[in-house]
Amino acid sequence: MDTLNFNLAQAIEVLERTPNLLDSMLRGLSDGWTTHNEGGETWSPYDVMGHLIYGENSNWITRMEIILSDKPDKTFAQFDRFAQFELSKGKTLSQLLDEFKAVRQKNITYLKAKNLTEADLGKKGIHPAFGEVSLKQLLSTWTVHDLNHLAQISRVMAKQYKQEVGPWVEYLRILKS
Amino acid sequence: MDTLNFNLAQAIEVLERTPNLLDSMLRGLSDGWTTHNEGGETWSPYDVMGHLIYGENSNWITRMEIILSDKPDKTFAQFDRFAQFELSKGKTLSQLLDEFKAVRQKNITYLKAKNLTEADLGKKGIHPAFGEVSLKQLLSTWTVHDLNHLAQISRVMAKQYKQEVGPWVEYLRILKS
Repeated sequence: MDTLNFNLAQAIEVLERTPNLLDSMLRGLSDGWTTHNEGGETWSPYDVMGHLIYGENSNWITRMEIILSDKPDKTFAQFDRFAQFELSKGKTLSQLLDEFKAVRQKNITYLKAKNLTEADLGKKGIHPAFGEVSLKQLLSTWTVHDLNHLAQISRVMAKQYKQEVGPWVEYLRILKS
Repeated sequence: MDTLNFNLAQAIEVLERTPNLLDSMLRGLSDGWTTHNEGGETWSPYDVMGHLIYGENSNWITRMEIILSDKPDKTFAQFDRFAQFELSKGKTLSQLLDEFKAVRQKNITYLKAKNLTEADLGKKGIHPAFGEVSLKQLLSTWTVHDLNHLAQISRVMAKQYKQEVGPWVEYLRILKS
């Protein structure tokens, strides 16, 4: 398979689209679509929005700063995969969509202003589980992380009709994943 | 898992969002994102757009009409899963996004004007592979089919950076599917 090499401008193309995309996808939908999950401890689209906001505030840019810094210890803090349950409390989905749009825009502006060089992209930080990772890998992961959660939201919504599609379940890969 | 029952108004909420969502996701992206696939005979985001247009013109509404008709033989025609390779020839992605928006809007307007009753939703047609299927199952499948292809586009794009995320591949479910 012929894949792409990381390219900062092209990664930003994806990252800066995500807020409007999520807005088109979720704003104004009936609660059934946005609050149901895949069962058990899985996340609803509402939960995913909180997770994305947490990432903007506490993960991606914070980790970039550690990598670019002169600190002797460049170990990242753990990502809290449950932070959104506390942080989203009392907020509507519309509020989360607005909040994500604002913080993502701020982060992209900040990222662009850094004028990262190839040398910067090769700099390293320490992931608490994986060890050495580069800035290029971090920014690639930020991009794929968006797409991962877009696919997740699509899947969670699709599964709400798993009982309703009848025999077509055989042709709908998303219902089997 | 607590899923939703089919509800026509709620299905339309999803169906009518898809054109703007795809527009936010794809219009203006670099070609690398939109023309690469997952290898072999898989589809690129560009290919998926053609497939969605074909479905609007030749599948969903056509099958609904067969179900609601008085024809003695209510067997659907086969869905051509390769139609888009011919139909999209010479068209830009922007043209496909415009074309999909127009035909989806026309189909939703048509669907709403039908004022389908519960009795209508229970009517049956014959799927060439599965046999008897109801209108409710057809409309549920149309909805899930959109979400299936949104997840597919996210996955195809994500996989372009599979080599670039380094050890994070372990945390990104979309790269393993």
